[in-house]
Parts: sequence; C-alpha cells; structure tokens
Amino acid sequence: MTGLCTDLYEIRMAASYLRRGMLAPATFSLFARRLPPSRGFLVAAGLADCLDFLERLHFDAAELDHLADVVHLPAGDVAALAELRFTGDVWAVPEGRVVFGGEPLLEVTAPLPQAQLVETALLNFATFQSSVASKAARCRIAAPEADLIDFAARRTHGLDAARAVARASALVGFAGTSYVQAAREFDLPAAGTMAHSYVEAFPDERAAFRAFAEDFPDSAIFLVDTYDTPHGVRTAIEVAGELPRGIGIRLDSGDLGELAVQARRQLDAAGLTGARIMASGGLDEHQLAALVSSGAPIDAYGVGTKVGVSADAPSLDSAYKLVEYDGRPVMKLSAGKLTAPGAKQVHRGTAGRDDVLALRGEPVAEGREPVLEPVMRAGVRTSRDDSIRAARRRFEQDLRWLPEQARRLTDPTPVGVTWSASLHRRAAELRRTLEIRHGVRAEVAPP
Amino acid sequence: MTGLCTDLYEIRMAASYLRRGMLAPATFSLFARRLPPSRGFLVAAGLADCLDFLERLHFDAAELDHLADVVHLPAGDVAALAELRFTGDVWAVPEGRVVFGGEPLLEVTAPLPQAQLVETALLNFATFQSSVASKAARCRIAAPEADLIDFAARRTHGLDAARAVARASALVGFAGTSYVQAAREFDLPAAGTMAHSYVEAFPDERAAFRAFAEDFPDSAIFLVDTYDTPHGVRTAIEVAGELPRGIGIRLDSGDLGELAVQARRQLDAAGLTGARIMASGGLDEHQLAALVSSGAPIDAYGVGTKVGVSADAPSLDSAYKLVEYDGRPVMKLSAGKLTAPGAKQVHRGTAGRDDVLALRGEPVAEGREPVLEPVMRAGVRTSRDDSIRAARRRFEQDLRWLPEQARRLTDPTPVGVTWSASLHRRAAELRRTLEIRHGVRAEVAPP
Repeated sequence: MTGLCTDLYEIRMAASYLRRGMLAPATFSLFARRLPPSRGFLVAAGLADCLDFLERLHFDAAELDHLADVVHLPAGDVAALAELRFTGDVWAVPEGRVVFGGEPLLEVTAPLPQAQLVETALLNFATFQSSVASKAARCRIAAPEADLIDFAARRTHGLDAARAVARASALVGFAGTSYVQAAREFDLPAAGTMAHSYVEAFPDERAAFRAFAEDFPDSAIFLVDTYDTPHGVRTAIEVAGELPRGIGIRLDSGDLGELAVQARRQLDAAGLTGARIMASGGLDEHQLAALVSSGAPIDAYGVGTKVGVSADAPSLDSAYKLVEYDGRPVMKLSAGKLTAPGAKQVHRGTAGRDDVLALRGEPVAEGREPVLEPVMRAGVRTSRDDSIRAARRRFEQDLRWLPEQARRLTDPTPVGVTWSASLHRRAAELRRTLEIRHGVRAEVAPP
Repeated sequence: MTGLCTDLYEIRMAASYLRRGMLAPATFSLFARRLPPSRGFLVAAGLADCLDFLERLHFDAAELDHLADVVHLPAGDVAALAELRFTGDVWAVPEGRVVFGGEPLLEVTAPLPQAQLVETALLNFATFQSSVASKAARCRIAAPEADLIDFAARRTHGLDAARAVARASALVGFAGTSYVQAAREFDLPAAGTMAHSYVEAFPDERAAFRAFAEDFPDSAIFLVDTYDTPHGVRTAIEVAGELPRGIGIRLDSGDLGELAVQARRQLDAAGLTGARIMASGGLDEHQLAALVSSGAPIDAYGVGTKVGVSADAPSLDSAYKLVEYDGRPVMKLSAGKLTAPGAKQVHRGTAGRDDVLALRGEPVAEGREPVLEPVMRAGVRTSRDDSIRAARRRFEQDLRWLPEQARRLTDPTPVGVTWSASLHRRAAELRRTLEIRHGVRAEVAPP
C-alpha cells in the first residue's frame, strides 16, 4: 500500500497545495451522511487498516517516476511528494462501537496536502468494513446463541476483501472463519467441513464419510445433502457407530429448519444427542431470525455471501469532507450535501440513548460520554488496545445500550442525532457568510 | 497470493485426497446457476487473475508451518502439500464475452487435490469481476456515446477491489479510471479533476479555479457545485477568459440534466462551445439512460459506487462443481442445485442467437461457434491475446450479437440456453444410477 493507492485528483490537489505552500493544518471528517434504509445502526470498522495506511504512506522511486513520466508532474512536485509522509493527528470511533448517520467515523487533522491525499484509502476502508461489520452485527442479533462462521471468501470482492470480511465479522462476535489466510493473520479459529465434491469423488456417501472421519477424527462433520438429506443423515449415523468420537452434520440446501428438526430426531433416536447440526446456504439475518424463532435445532451457521458483500447495502453514502482549514471552518452548500463545519465530537447519552453532535472542544454534559478518541498523534498511533477482542467487548457493550427500535431487523429507526447549540450557531454563521460571498441561498439547516 | 488463500475445507479435502492417492484427473465447472433478475447477460471477467493464481499456486515454508502447528496437519500431509503445484488444464470463456446462467465461465481439469484446492480463489475472482464487468457493460449500453470514467475506488470493497473494478470496467469500454495504481498497472488513462475541498481551501471559488488552471493548464476541469452551480459556472467562464487554453466543468449534485442544460447555455453564450461537461454523483445505468434520453448535454460521466460494488447485484449465484472424476461423470441431486455432469462446451448460435450447452467432445453444428477456449495446458498459459484491448473487442462484438431483450436495462430476458441431446442423455442416465444407489428420487431435469 503506497502513495499511488489513491485517486488522481488527490495527487493533483496535493501537488497544487505543495506548490502554493498551502501547508496549514486541515481537518477532514469522514462520516456516512445517512444510514441505508435497512440499517438502524452502523458498527465502526476499518480503523486498523486506516492507521496502517497512514503509517506507511509514501511514494517509492518507481511511483515517483510514474508521476513524472506518465502523469507529467513537474520535477518540483515530484520532489515534494517524495518527502511526503503522514504527520497528522487522527480522532476516531474505536472499532466495534455503534455510530449513526452524520457522525464522524474518523477525523484527520494534518497539513492540507497529506490530509487530502489519504481520502480515497480512508473512505474505502471505513466504508467497506463498517458496512460488513454492521451486516454481520445484525446476524449476531438474529442468532445470539448460535456459533456464526464466516463462509464468505468465495464471493467477496477479491481475496483482500475476504481478509477484511473475516476480521469485520470477528469484531462483532463471529466464532470463526473458513478463510485460512485471515484466520492465520488475525489468530481466529479456522473452520471447515467438506464439500459436495468430496462426497462425489468417492464411490458412495458412506465411503466418503468413513474416509473423512478416518482422516479428521476431531472434526468429522458430514455434509449430508449431496443426494438426499434424510438418507445422508442415516449414513452419517451408521458411520458414527464405527467411530470412537462424535460426529456433526451440515445441511446446505432445502428447507433447513424442517430438515434440522428431522435430522435432530434421527440423531437423538440413535443416541447421538451430542452431534451438532450446522446449516449454510445463502443465509442472511432475516433467514437466521426465522430459523431461530421457528425453534430449528441448529447449533452453528455458516454465513457467507450475503454478509461478505453486505448484499442489501453493499456501500454507504460516506464522505470525507474538509471542515476546517488554517483555523477557518468550512462547509459546502451543494444541494442535499450540506456539511457541518469544524472538528467534532459525538456526545452519547449513556442513560438517555441519544447522541449529540458537538464541536470537539465543547464540554461533555453529565450523563453523556465522548465517542471519538485520539488514535494517532503526529503520525504515530497512540497506545490503545486495538485488538479484535477489545473491539468485540465494545460492540457487546454498545449492543446492550442500543434501543430496540435501532436493533430490530425490519424497518429499524436509528438513534436520533441532534446538533449542539454551538454547532448550530457555527453552521448558521458560516452559511450566512458563504451565501453573501457566493450570492446564493443555501437550503435550511439539518436537524 | 499463495496456498492459504483458500477455505479450510479445501485444504482438508486436498490432504485427504493426497493421503488416499486419489490423484486421478477431476473436472470442475465454474458457472453462475442463474442470472440476477436485473441482468439479461453477464460479461466474463476475472480470468487473468485466475490464471495468475494457478501459475503461482504453492505453499511457502511459513504457511506449511502454520498447517502443521495450527491446523494440526500431520507431517505426511504437509510434505505432500509442499510439493503441490497446479499442473492442470483450463478451458474458459475469454474475458469480455457474454455468458448466461448455467454456462461454464471456466472448467478446470487437474489431479483432484489441485483442482479442489483452487476452488475458493477461482470462484472469488470470476464471480466478483464478472459481476462488475456486467454492471459496467449496462452503463455502456445506457450511454454509448459518452466517455465513462471509473470513479469507484473510494467505495469498492478494499483497494484490491478498486484495482479489479478499474480493469473490469475497462474491459467493457470505460475510457479511464480515477484510481492511479490501476491506471499504472493496466496502462489505462488516469482521470481526475478537483474535489470540493480544493474549492473550500481557497478564500473563494474564483481563487481556486485560477490556481488549478495555473497548475494544470491541460486539464482545467472545474467542479462548479460547491456553493451554487450557475454561480460556479459563471466563475468558471470568467476564469476561462484569462486562460490560453480551454476549460471543462464537472457537476456533482442536484438535477444533473437540468444543470447541464443551463451550464451548456451559459458556456455557449460565452463562446466556450468546446468546454466539456462532466457529471458524477451516485450514477448507475438507469440514471445514465434517463440523462441520455432527456438529451442532457453531458460529454463524460464519472461512474463510481454503483458499478464498483455492482450495487443491485453485488454477487452471483456461482458454483464450482465437480462434474467428472477419474473418467466417471458426477452430479449432485441436492434440492434446487442439480448440476450437469461432464466437461462442457457452449455452442453459440451465430445467426440464431441462442446457446446450446453441450458435452465438450460434441461436434459443433453449422451456424454455431464454441465459446470456451483452452487457456492453460499442464499448468502453462496457452499463447492467447489476453490484453484488455482484445477483451474489449470481444465485448463490442458480442454486444452487437446480443438480442434486444437481453440488452435492455429493465426486465431483461437472457438468451435461452438449452441442453444438447447428449448432455440430456448423460444427465438422465447418471440421475437414475444415483437415485438407485442412494434410494432417492431427484427432481426433474432442468431445461
């Protein structure tokens, strides 16, 4: 990950700023303008990759040559970019915490060229990973007792995305992932059974189950639906009788709830009361909730594509907006895209369950807590616990705080976010100034 | 990209096969079971990454240690995996060609452990990149005369995905990308203007436009909507009067069609008839079509998020299914997931505009052409033109072939795919054999 991992216009603007000595501190705020209609909350994720990116930001020699030869930047610009590193400060919502529309996920304060250049990567990491963490969180809400396993690697948007999905789902309490590379990097439990092809490669189902149990006696989970599920369960039970240790089964097609009830009955009748039932196949939070509420005896779910691409909301209406430059608050007045000026903080009601968007310096009232924390100072990470375990604790805590109308899976209503009096005042003053200067009338103020 | 970039079960199955000497050739077929309802066709993409992955497949020393220490594979398995390389054959639909539900995008024939191990990566690349290429193709259909620029990098699922999106959209004729890293890797035109933050960092719009034109006289495209679009256009015109070369403008909010008409009028009245108008902001194929059919005078579109995540169909119902092992055709009978046995070929009607799914060895009838080509033999790429330029030519040609009902953006109907008599016969025979062996009755045959 290096300097060219950005949009061309960031490089052009950074070069222009460098040339003009516009190096004063700029603050950019990264936020989702509003939540997708199907979301009552977002879970902050992607910060770890953002901070890694900022720490490593530079242009290597070949990249500088490209900027000179292909992008046609003059030698002066190229020399200035060669020296560029990220030396700014970052405040952010820690991973695992819930956030709402209009609230900053992170804010960068740095010399203008640096702060501009990193826009593309920061938006990308925060948008994508928060989308997936939020979708995965809804699955946790749908099936709080079951083990959820990330099965998404085959259908995420690239293998890098599979890595991020494994991590984002772990942040909200997924029990493991099928993707070995991510399990290794993040020290997550790797999980996996067998595919239909395994069953088909043997002369019959029984031979396949027997071979698998012999090779993996500690994880003999049989996929029972290749030909016919009840028949497959009977075969699994017969093979289990020959084994010293227990078995499990996986259902991957058909009416999972009904098949699970039937399989549970077959297994119990055979004395295999400890045999676990896993289900998979295009599941999302709504299907999980339906299975759980029907009382389906399913112990674990493999959850793949729908979470891995956040199928019903594969992106957020996110933005990275300049809110202050050289001590001067700024905002844009574009139709439908009015932004709030200045560095900000979210004051969360610990009892009242509402949020106030305030200017960063404002005092936090009794019964509220600030949500954004300083996570990088002068280009160096502050010492914080940014482990997956810590994020998961924050998520569990926020989930208890989250009101029912925001938690619910269908037609959720996000927690209300109001602006502090000071933020209102600053926005109104600035709007007036800009309207006069640009001879326009902007739309009325947001909440 | 190495051996651990896969699901755990692939490694377990491969280890089991290796242990049992199940090394006979296996053929797997990768296909989308059916198209998303909003798609009348798919554009094949992702093959280049698939072949790269196959060429490089191996486990390095640290990965082998991980398999021994964490995954607890015995030393024999680890030693066997250490030797594993991909030595198989691949037939595939060349990138840029259109395909339909049930038609193989690619087929792998290799010793069973190798062919199994690569499932996750091949599915991932083919599914994701074909999804995006198909969405981008619909944008091309919507706005055939305009320049379309990929603006998606900030909201793709990771930066690796941004790279793949730039390439997939170039395959179907996008004119450039904002993502510098991809422009460099694939030798695509990089495009970019200025952000709202640039305008805001200067005391006023005029100062910003002036500075930008001075720094980038060859690409002075002014973003005119930061405060008020008609006012921004007036400012752009004034600044243009001071410049030796032409300007362009970009609209990024509001009613783009109406604002473009107004801006065109302002520009023309000022004699700037050559000034190009670019529009961006959450565009997809439907909005492009509406703008084009309204006659909006827009020369270029920045198309971002909606294509970059293939927003209305962010994944495909794709599968990688064993169809033959050791000379024996196989199929599964799972509810709703019945597969067609054996290695296959698509016979495309060059006049009739329909496809026949046939067994690979079958003769191709007069008036039809085979769609899959051999792209790798014994682990080595065949010499083919796999450039973006060649893929684009294939796409343009197939687009001319594609019937109107499959091309149309709303309620499209894909081209019909029927099975050859031989494929029907083979599937029916195999189904009977499996039903008898497993004591079940499978559902009736597909088309």
